[in-house]
Amino acid sequence: MTNIKTVDRKDVFSESFLLRSKTAENLYFGYAKDMPVIDYHNHLEPDVISKNQNFRSPTAIWLDGDHYKWRAMRNFGIEEKFISGDASDQEKFRKWTEVVPYTLRNPLFHWTHMELNNPFGIKEYLSLKNIDSVYHKMNDNLQMPGFLPQSIITNFNVETLCTTDDPADNLQYHKTIKNSSFTTRVLPTFRPDSYINIINTENYLRQIKKLEKVSEINIKSTSDLLEALYSRIQYFHENGARISDHGLEYFPDTKKWSTALENEFKEFLTGNKKSFSDPEALSGHLLKELCKMYAEKNWVQQFHIGATRNNNTIMLNTIGTNAGYDAISEQYFAQRMSMMFDELNTAGKLTQTIVYNLNPSFNEVLATLVGNFNEAGIKSKIQLGAAWWFLDQMEGMKKQINTLSNIGLISTFIGMLTDSRSLLSFSRHDYFRRLLCDIFGSEMEAGLLPDDEQWVGSIIQDICFNNTKNYFRF
Amino acid sequence: MTNIKTVDRKDVFSESFLLRSKTAENLYFGYAKDMPVIDYHNHLEPDVISKNQNFRSPTAIWLDGDHYKWRAMRNFGIEEKFISGDASDQEKFRKWTEVVPYTLRNPLFHWTHMELNNPFGIKEYLSLKNIDSVYHKMNDNLQMPGFLPQSIITNFNVETLCTTDDPADNLQYHKTIKNSSFTTRVLPTFRPDSYINIINTENYLRQIKKLEKVSEINIKSTSDLLEALYSRIQYFHENGARISDHGLEYFPDTKKWSTALENEFKEFLTGNKKSFSDPEALSGHLLKELCKMYAEKNWVQQFHIGATRNNNTIMLNTIGTNAGYDAISEQYFAQRMSMMFDELNTAGKLTQTIVYNLNPSFNEVLATLVGNFNEAGIKSKIQLGAAWWFLDQMEGMKKQINTLSNIGLISTFIGMLTDSRSLLSFSRHDYFRRLLCDIFGSEMEAGLLPDDEQWVGSIIQDICFNNTKNYFRF
Amino acid sequence: MTNIKTVDRKDVFSESFLLRSKTAENLYFGYAKDMPVIDYHNHLEPDVISKNQNFRSPTAIWLDGDHYKWRAMRNFGIEEKFISGDASDQEKFRKWTEVVPYTLRNPLFHWTHMELNNPFGIKEYLSLKNIDSVYHKMNDNLQMPGFLPQSIITNFNVETLCTTDDPADNLQYHKTIKNSSFTTRVLPTFRPDSYINIINTENYLRQIKKLEKVSEINIKSTSDLLEALYSRIQYFHENGARISDHGLEYFPDTKKWSTALENEFKEFLTGNKKSFSDPEALSGHLLKELCKMYAEKNWVQQFHIGATRNNNTIMLNTIGTNAGYDAISEQYFAQRMSMMFDELNTAGKLTQTIVYNLNPSFNEVLATLVGNFNEAGIKSKIQLGAAWWFLDQMEGMKKQINTLSNIGLISTFIGMLTDSRSLLSFSRHDYFRRLLCDIFGSEMEAGLLPDDEQWVGSIIQDICFNNTKNYFRF
Repeated sequence: MTNIKTVDRKDVFSESFLLRSKTAENLYFGYAKDMPVIDYHNHLEPDVISKNQNFRSPTAIWLDGDHYKWRAMRNFGIEEKFISGDASDQEKFRKWTEVVPYTLRNPLFHWTHMELNNPFGIKEYLSLKNIDSVYHKMNDNLQMPGFLPQSIITNFNVETLCTTDDPADNLQYHKTIKNSSFTTRVLPTFRPDSYINIINTENYLRQIKKLEKVSEINIKSTSDLLEALYSRIQYFHENGARISDHGLEYFPDTKKWSTALENEFKEFLTGNKKSFSDPEALSGHLLKELCKMYAEKNWVQQFHIGATRNNNTIMLNTIGTNAGYDAISEQYFAQRMSMMFDELNTAGKLTQTIVYNLNPSFNEVLATLVGNFNEAGIKSKIQLGAAWWFLDQMEGMKKQINTLSNIGLISTFIGMLTDSRSLLSFSRHDYFRRLLCDIFGSEMEAGLLPDDEQWVGSIIQDICFNNTKNYFRF
Repeated sequence: MTNIKTVDRKDVFSESFLLRSKTAENLYFGYAKDMPVIDYHNHLEPDVISKNQNFRSPTAIWLDGDHYKWRAMRNFGIEEKFISGDASDQEKFRKWTEVVPYTLRNPLFHWTHMELNNPFGIKEYLSLKNIDSVYHKMNDNLQMPGFLPQSIITNFNVETLCTTDDPADNLQYHKTIKNSSFTTRVLPTFRPDSYINIINTENYLRQIKKLEKVSEINIKSTSDLLEALYSRIQYFHENGARISDHGLEYFPDTKKWSTALENEFKEFLTGNKKSFSDPEALSGHLLKELCKMYAEKNWVQQFHIGATRNNNTIMLNTIGTNAGYDAISEQYFAQRMSMMFDELNTAGKLTQTIVYNLNPSFNEVLATLVGNFNEAGIKSKIQLGAAWWFLDQMEGMKKQINTLSNIGLISTFIGMLTDSRSLLSFSRHDYFRRLLCDIFGSEMEAGLLPDDEQWVGSIIQDICFNNTKNYFRF
Repeated sequence: MTNIKTVDRKDVFSESFLLRSKTAENLYFGYAKDMPVIDYHNHLEPDVISKNQNFRSPTAIWLDGDHYKWRAMRNFGIEEKFISGDASDQEKFRKWTEVVPYTLRNPLFHWTHMELNNPFGIKEYLSLKNIDSVYHKMNDNLQMPGFLPQSIITNFNVETLCTTDDPADNLQYHKTIKNSSFTTRVLPTFRPDSYINIINTENYLRQIKKLEKVSEINIKSTSDLLEALYSRIQYFHENGARISDHGLEYFPDTKKWSTALENEFKEFLTGNKKSFSDPEALSGHLLKELCKMYAEKNWVQQFHIGATRNNNTIMLNTIGTNAGYDAISEQYFAQRMSMMFDELNTAGKLTQTIVYNLNPSFNEVLATLVGNFNEAGIKSKIQLGAAWWFLDQMEGMKKQINTLSNIGLISTFIGMLTDSRSLLSFSRHDYFRRLLCDIFGSEMEAGLLPDDEQWVGSIIQDICFNNTKNYFRF
């Protein structure tokens, strides 16, 4: 132990951030740090990656569309003008900076400073005291080639990343990227939410029209709709997709569909009928049929369950969706999900699945549920997904890791993903790895795990990279 | 570090109780300890404060009506005679003393000894071994002027306290206190539960009669009832009230009221109809209308949600309500609450709100929900209230603090309140502050927070006092 | 402190495993370690104990029927042949060994090595590297008299154990054991699940026939059925039983039974009617009536609530029940349970009760609920049962211990039980005791508990043994 104070040595700018023990440091530096990243689920924009242009300003890369930061700013009482409004980039940056010191203990505080540190090389807590120098350093950097989108991705050692795409998307940017010299693999993910959930009648019919056009299939029934979606699954598959994704507030009843509902839906599709009486039964029916298609293609299906969205009507009408007005749902759903899994499994149509849960009170229920459906030769066929969205913070991650460890096998976990819209979020893989090494290291020192760094290190590497690579057969 | 053993130095009688690190001590002694107290919600009796008379005995100030202690005694198998029964003060004190050592790890164990220490100056674990000396020391003290109710409040450095009052209350004691030389501000809180929930028909109608009399309004409909309540809101406002409070087992449906129900309620009010078919719809209707009134007066509204009360019928019939037979409800309620907030918000009628939740499994759901409704210029307009009742213990407090930190902003939290019926409970503010400083101090030492005592200390002071003062505009 | 590294000293093979502080060690070695064991609920087979024969192989004692290990193996992608299938004992042992190192952080990892250590004396982490020597050492040991079932039980210092038995069981093995020289008391427990839940019509009627025969009562109504069950309660009582047990996915409605349902049930019993319309109402009715009988006999009743079973239909059809395809239920149930307790209590028919809860999100709800029904002279008449099944691991145990401490009295807790089908599981009592001493020891060192080893040690002994002995009046 040197004379350097612990508090200096382990802060967010330190090489040993979060690594509270020597063993944790050994695991991180010896095994975790240099593993490549597979970010198998995010919301990055393929056009941004493909066009690979400089960002307009620090605000553009850091604040635009970042509803995590927006929520914190609103919470602090900042005017909307400076959040999603028409204030200048510099004004917005100033308001965010005002809030930053008050985000302490929120994940934003660590994320912000990890992102300043990497890639910007800024090792200072941001506040109104140093705002000008920080802004200029960020801004100057952003004009350099090393801060182009593809450079940022390369800098974070990303081997593969999977975006989230509409079934009607022509995937032109994915094609362009594939044919370019960019070495990171950028794959599309099939996310058909807007074709299976009727939230707004007009929007829904507009989506159907879009799908008809791109698939060249007339959609007059659920089987037409499913056929059209299947043609897109084929198209996505040809373009490298191996994963689908569904966002669900809770789990729909997948056993409710009937001839009467089918007839009503046909009428609804003609536009003569203005509403549909049982949208949940429709979602349930389509979801189950899609799952069978994913099984046929040997894809991995993902379910993001438990977000209740757009809870503030004024703001929905003012600035739209994905604006920071969402919450964790209290609605439970495990029994229905288990029954659908069982039905699919009985039919030989249950493919590999990742369940992301947003309500941590359901962690244990789900950790037991996913253990009921396995397959010889596949490690943890149904995965309890990493802590997500509001839970993507130290405590949420620990809970997910501990529950999975206690009830399942942490050694077969496919680990972290960012789920982010921002290129700077890749540092969250580093955050996860540090936390993982800290947990395992502490337990080695306490005698709860074998005093065998090589063995435990190999498990760490599996969780950081190898399991993911094997699971997706990338 | 001196030769004194840690275990001696940090016990419940120690100045450094709960402060596990040097930094925690610095935060507590340098920033938290001397901040005044605003106890913005409790159940103290204004007549006791106003009359300011000596307590009859240690039993009177410590055990009478304290259903926390009663539950522990029953749990230990003590006869009811010595709990709520007709045993003597000394017998009751003896039985409680018998139980005290067996309350270890329950918050009662720390509370009991913190209360013995301050204000009584007794630094010994209570047991049958020292019962006589403790009893006499407490008893002797209670005869001294320094142990009059107002002195105890002053001793705890209480700047403002808010009692909980029936809308029909004439607030005479609040007036007397205001006009006295007592320097602590004692404000009433408007709690209309018994006028909006029909639990027992006779009681309900008796309450309505009481309200008619005091408001001089004939109550023949919900609008009359609301008018009468509004007149009392005015009266409370004139007497310093700025806060209302509602106790709810779960959240009523606020969209169910109808003309038919209104007609039925009118008939019910005449006394001709013996029951009312949908008391929940009534509660929901009245609750929402009251919320609009609070918004008009710019009050803060409080919701205490999630207690199921009087679960032991024999004991309810024997000794009545608030006797220690309550529990945490499993019933979830966030969606309904969110919808009412949204409806009020859309109408420009959502005032500042504190949500106290009794089921810790709902913490994360609520922490996200409250973040959906903010207002420029107000810090955390909707607050996730401090850990409450059964959760008012170290783990419950930590969970609330951590969830709020991870999902919202702990820096804007309005902090602790006692919710207590006892004048000795003010030491719980000290308990909270110690815990808060310990959490922040540990994280500073671990590098999770900046190594900046002045900055973190200022956040601590905000949570202990400044945020509260600003939030309530006291 | 010697030169031995902490990590060596405190691993799973160490005498000080889990005891992180000197005080924890003092509590464990001075107070906990040598207390006898009362294993008041398990699923050991009385014939195995009675016949007292050597085990066929390590696989027989360690893997046969152990659905915890089976789940882990399936999770790892092992073929079913090597799990429940027809592979040889040695092949199965090899596959399990392959998985063991990957169970780190799952309770199986600690259990496995604690069991190797005691009784087998093997102090090595099991892996494919040492599989042969471990297998042979286990196998050799199992041929010795010291590894006969009764010897294993004696070795673990078990004073009393309670098996789980069908009401129609003739208890012959319990009688044989009682009349033998075996010094551990082996008592039956009355578990009437299959007589009160209609899951499969044919099975149900077959059970009724079995009960008719053994009770010599013609069962033509629920009162006949209850009379027959009561005759078996008498029989169990005569053979030492003082405890009943019910396994419930959730809590049935105990207020729904009606004359119409009774008539339908009578018809159903004749075999003329192929199904019964409201099995839940039947379960609720019978459950409540049985509870009254237990009260009459002054028994302790147990409720194991919250498991949803046999969720994988293919595997249910292939290998049957209790095969590792179960999960934690999300269904809440506290209100109904509370209402039945209240009804029984009002009737003077609420006997001592232990509630085991499988969903940890309900811990706090239940900890408050059980505190509403006490009785003078009995310590914690309604007990919050120890962490169970999927929760029988360090975190699950800590949560149960902490919730009970924070909301009730940990000092009156009746402590650990194995609930196991395996004779090797008795080491889980040791695991529990170490954890308990670690928790109390850490808090003594932190000043949260008095620095009085003798006092805290006596509480530890109460939780490990004395409370149990007193509670059951064994």
